Amino acid sequence: MDIKQYMQTVGRQARAASRRLASATTAEKNAALLQLAAAIRRDKAALLAANAEDLTAARANGLEPAMVDRLTLTDKGVDNMAEGVEQVAKLPDPIGEISDVKFRPSGIQVGKMRVPLGVIGIIYEARPNVTADAAALCLKSGNAAILRGGSEAIHCNRAIARLIQEALQYAGLPAEAVQVIDTTDRAAVGELITLREFVDVIVPRGGKGLIARLLAEARVPMIQHLDGNCHVYIDDEADPAKALKIVENAKTQRYGTCNTAESLLVARSVAAAQLPAIAAMLTGKGVEIRGCDETRALVPNAVPATEEDWATEYLAPIISVKVVAGIDEAIEHINRYSSKHTEAIVTDHHPKAMRFLREVDSASVMINASTRFADGFEYGLGAEIGISTDKIHARGPVGLEGLTSEKWIVLGDGHVRS
Amino acid sequence: MDIKQYMQTVGRQARAASRRLASATTAEKNAALLQLAAAIRRDKAALLAANAEDLTAARANGLEPAMVDRLTLTDKGVDNMAEGVEQVAKLPDPIGEISDVKFRPSGIQVGKMRVPLGVIGIIYEARPNVTADAAALCLKSGNAAILRGGSEAIHCNRAIARLIQEALQYAGLPAEAVQVIDTTDRAAVGELITLREFVDVIVPRGGKGLIARLLAEARVPMIQHLDGNCHVYIDDEADPAKALKIVENAKTQRYGTCNTAESLLVARSVAAAQLPAIAAMLTGKGVEIRGCDETRALVPNAVPATEEDWATEYLAPIISVKVVAGIDEAIEHINRYSSKHTEAIVTDHHPKAMRFLREVDSASVMINASTRFADGFEYGLGAEIGISTDKIHARGPVGLEGLTSEKWIVLGDGHVRS
Repeated sequence: MDIKQYMQTVGRQARAASRRLASATTAEKNAALLQLAAAIRRDKAALLAANAEDLTAARANGLEPAMVDRLTLTDKGVDNMAEGVEQVAKLPDPIGEISDVKFRPSGIQVGKMRVPLGVIGIIYEARPNVTADAAALCLKSGNAAILRGGSEAIHCNRAIARLIQEALQYAGLPAEAVQVIDTTDRAAVGELITLREFVDVIVPRGGKGLIARLLAEARVPMIQHLDGNCHVYIDDEADPAKALKIVENAKTQRYGTCNTAESLLVARSVAAAQLPAIAAMLTGKGVEIRGCDETRALVPNAVPATEEDWATEYLAPIISVKVVAGIDEAIEHINRYSSKHTEAIVTDHHPKAMRFLREVDSASVMINASTRFADGFEYGLGAEIGISTDKIHARGPVGLEGLTSEKWIVLGDGHVRS
Repeated sequence: MDIKQYMQTVGRQARAASRRLASATTAEKNAALLQLAAAIRRDKAALLAANAEDLTAARANGLEPAMVDRLTLTDKGVDNMAEGVEQVAKLPDPIGEISDVKFRPSGIQVGKMRVPLGVIGIIYEARPNVTADAAALCLKSGNAAILRGGSEAIHCNRAIARLIQEALQYAGLPAEAVQVIDTTDRAAVGELITLREFVDVIVPRGGKGLIARLLAEARVPMIQHLDGNCHVYIDDEADPAKALKIVENAKTQRYGTCNTAESLLVARSVAAAQLPAIAAMLTGKGVEIRGCDETRALVPNAVPATEEDWATEYLAPIISVKVVAGIDEAIEHINRYSSKHTEAIVTDHHPKAMRFLREVDSASVMINASTRFADGFEYGLGAEIGISTDKIHARGPVGLEGLTSEKWIVLGDGHVRS
């Protein structure tokens, strides 16, 4: 197969389908989604069989256990996949929404209309559920999708792709509205991320390695999600009970999520009073503490933190802890080391809370709340295609709206410019 | 000078200044802007002298007359420059605006806060007024700016840069908040557009050649503005008087602007009734008509249009004219050939007007209004840094808001995720 030519064809078809999809009615899009969910439930056995094929190959190829785990589709996993698609069907249709229409002195009315981006390329690793999930979000937001899943999941992805085709056909929508790349050749990714003519945005869902590669090579705009080096700052005016509760939740509720806190900053004036109890709670839960010198003086079991620790997303029961002079040093430290994902201040002092909100340059900034709330569902988006740590177009959790754009509309009645 | 090292220093300084600027008060930013305007008026003679130096060099180097014209700063031009800066001072400050704060079932409140993008790189050709204009827009929107003007305007740009420095200092803001690249070495542009670490977005203001080069080489997101191949479509249900008036204004009010119509589509059922009068009006104003066969049957002085004509932005008294079957063919033609800038339909038929609005994939879509309205001032943005023909982040005229982003804010009182 000539990969370049194959991807050109896929791109051209996606662009053509996107025109039809942009004007699809809410009813058509929902019909396709509900049919897809029904087909997933109906063909559960076939999907599990396809996944078993992938798993056999993965084990034969010596894939590491964590990857095998992510690749595994369970009976419940298939149900969740169908439910996820049904949830997207229930979300309000963002497309066609008209807002802010105002008369101008010239007599024209100017406003905005929400429209799809066009064609979205999604590149992800070996998680079969992403195929259905991403297809559903793109479809509901009126975008054509080109999906490139991890090669380890190719059998399962092909099986899901067939159901998506069936659902599109059922609803009278073009089959090319969702295309699953049917080759494991890595060159396909290289082509996809440079198809400026046919692809409007790339959404990568995967590890740092994948995203670093895409960042270096992409010629198409990306909604990128780098790591989540999230901070909690305990201010001089923090309520100790709230601080303890928030650190516990932010660090220990789940270790592997991107909105988990990886670094704790504590104002010097309250460090002696609050750090020992917090450290005891963390240690009790098996969390390793890597601290600055002042932290280690207060927390004897803390190991020394290195410069590298301040910039690290552990995704593990480890936390870096630093005593700071106050809010200025906290903001400076965060803006220097954070990955611009999510940061929280614990304080009862209104002006400092407002300064933190305004001056911390991250996608989500929180007052007296756990960083774990940074999530599309918790924010009320209903679903999420990813969390952007970028500033252009979309920041933080990206839902349906992040897959859209607004164009200007002008309503006149024979108006001309003077 | 080591250009790479110089640009790294400029980038690092811009990033540092952007932190201070993000928390600058409206009063501080306006003080700097008003001081800049006053200094421009005060030093008018010096600015004109610096411009004269540039003009002498330009003529000696055989710069073409159109470029010399754009480079020329007049007495009135200096006043306009100062007025432009004063107008930006009067605009509402977009930064810090909090919106959509809602309680979620978990008890947290989630909303958005408008924040600067950070560091904006502006690359433009030899128009000295852009230096003051772009500096003002970036400053007001809380962004640090790196300005790279055409080398032909270097003396004048240096003179304006000094006044900007003075104004920043006057207002207690960091001098590095606005940096004008002080070298004519083209390698500086190559560095600027790849400084991902320090530059958040590039706004190119210039011709197609400049933008094509940037598109090929940039590693930093761009708010791009390609050409304006704008269409007017006269529908079966068009009011002939409105159609004539709109075509006249859209094509002939100004020939060199990007929102000028370059192509006219006419529904077959009304072509015989309306095209001759429209053609007579255009011919009377010296506009050359390049038409399809059907057009030429109705307009004897029309020359044949080639495939290339449909895709051409003339920026001249030339228009391409095509007779189409109706709205379907019109939309298809526009989505194929337009540069996604601005398109207008003339019709009194509501469903067709709504279809045109929804299905035409351009930054501005208009009903019964001249394409010439596509402009930041006409839309009420107060000012405009450019017109985006892209879909990501900003579409159409880009004002202060287009230079900002929204981050999520979460307000809790000890809330944790369950």
